Amino acid sequence: MSKTPDATLVEQMDVMRSRVEAALEEILRTEDPRESRLVDAMRYSVMGDGKRIRPILCLASYEAVGGRGNEALPVAAALELIHAYSLVHDDLPCMDDDDTRRGKPAVHKAYGEGMAVLVGDGLLTLAFEVLATAPEGSSLPPARKMQVLKNIARAAGIRGMIAGQVGDLEALECPGDASLIDYVHARKTGALIAVSVWSGARLGTDEPGMIARLGQYGENVGLAFQIVDDILDYTDRPDEAASYVVCHGLVRARERAEELISTAKAGLDPLGENGRLLRDIADFILAQA
Amino acid sequence: MSKTPDATLVEQMDVMRSRVEAALEEILRTEDPRESRLVDAMRYSVMGDGKRIRPILCLASYEAVGGRGNEALPVAAALELIHAYSLVHDDLPCMDDDDTRRGKPAVHKAYGEGMAVLVGDGLLTLAFEVLATAPEGSSLPPARKMQVLKNIARAAGIRGMIAGQVGDLEALECPGDASLIDYVHARKTGALIAVSVWSGARLGTDEPGMIARLGQYGENVGLAFQIVDDILDYTDRPDEAASYVVCHGLVRARERAEELISTAKAGLDPLGENGRLLRDIADFILAQA
Repeated sequence: MSKTPDATLVEQMDVMRSRVEAALEEILRTEDPRESRLVDAMRYSVMGDGKRIRPILCLASYEAVGGRGNEALPVAAALELIHAYSLVHDDLPCMDDDDTRRGKPAVHKAYGEGMAVLVGDGLLTLAFEVLATAPEGSSLPPARKMQVLKNIARAAGIRGMIAGQVGDLEALECPGDASLIDYVHARKTGALIAVSVWSGARLGTDEPGMIARLGQYGENVGLAFQIVDDILDYTDRPDEAASYVVCHGLVRARERAEELISTAKAGLDPLGENGRLLRDIADFILAQA
Repeated sequence: MSKTPDATLVEQMDVMRSRVEAALEEILRTEDPRESRLVDAMRYSVMGDGKRIRPILCLASYEAVGGRGNEALPVAAALELIHAYSLVHDDLPCMDDDDTRRGKPAVHKAYGEGMAVLVGDGLLTLAFEVLATAPEGSSLPPARKMQVLKNIARAAGIRGMIAGQVGDLEALECPGDASLIDYVHARKTGALIAVSVWSGARLGTDEPGMIARLGQYGENVGLAFQIVDDILDYTDRPDEAASYVVCHGLVRARERAEELISTAKAGLDPLGENGRLLRDIADFILAQA
């Protein structure tokens, strides 16, 4: 299913990625030597090879509904900080016990386990500080920012991403109750992806129908992203459990990812040309599988 | 220095503690069996024997500046969630490696290490969700709530509580540079105590002078609390490093705590009778040593 993404799409994603990385650089800057070891470790975990799919989806969604300027950038960066924290904690020996991440030693290998716990805690807390800080010249109503912050906290929390990690921890493979696998699945990665899209839309418009439409796209893309991730895991390491694939089989997994992406794209039809980038990103996600 | 606290103070603190615990019960309620193991572990870590000093300071500060009703209660509860998360992560084998907490097995002993990481992550994330959720019938301006949330994130973050934990982790005992020990000290416990007081005041009034006055009280009480904590640690386990005591000696530690509490109380003189509870709590903190 792999194909080369459209050059324009790659360029657009690169531009957004650069904006996000510049914002992250700024957020993770310190001149205080007493903070430097922790901040170094945080930078180590955040900067580098990330795809930045969550912040890109946030910015693309913001622009798709007519948002302009840098109002969504801190939110996009905060979403990446939350993603990075989840990886740092996930790699810990008491969790997934992964020694490498993005081709380099995991934070707990490079800086020690205690430091890795604090790096994750620091990134998560910093994400909320960033979300609560208005960008310079911001004209967004605080109530709207607060709503975005609340929904991100929910998506990252015990009914969202953390519920997915509990499922992982309990080595849930293919339980008798298929609804349980879908529950865990929707939360592990899907919740944060979905809220990334929703947040961009919420920041960019006040129109409930539009926000709901983008929210639905986010839900579908989030589920598809998780299934694609499972397919890649299964292809790389077929001996390890990759829940959706083990449960439903590779053929059905691919079909389901295609259906979800197709539904996601179709929902953007009313946006016309404004929805193009989000449609292309949806295809890009599917093309990874 | 130990003395029996005034009966009225005990009663007032008990009433506030009950309000906070009822709020925490409500926040940590779940009917979804798929969430129950995680939420059980979160309740295990939060409910029980806590002194609830942070939420009590928040509520007392709110009322001292004229705040009435339940507007500060979710913030008070969120502060306790943040405190609880810090204890759960702090007890992990890769951190302080404590097997018991408040007379019962630490979360990582009762539920496993991986679960303890997720419990801490869940409590921290939930704290921000609670902070971002307006209580029913709330008339607080969102901008004010956002300012409170931001300052709490800062106090809990890499320039606050987490900086203190990094200092702990690096087994900092008595470095040549005394300003470093004070830096770590002020952050480890002091920052969250101080912001608890500040938040209560900020929620209860718009008067900058009053907020600054209460903020100063919070800084002093926060530092004193940490020194008292070090004195208690030193008394219980003189073989383990208790940084302030090891650095400055027991006599100077007690003197310093007394000075800080005295300054904290004096700063509340202009509040007259409205400052009484906060003055009594300051004495209560000192009386523990």
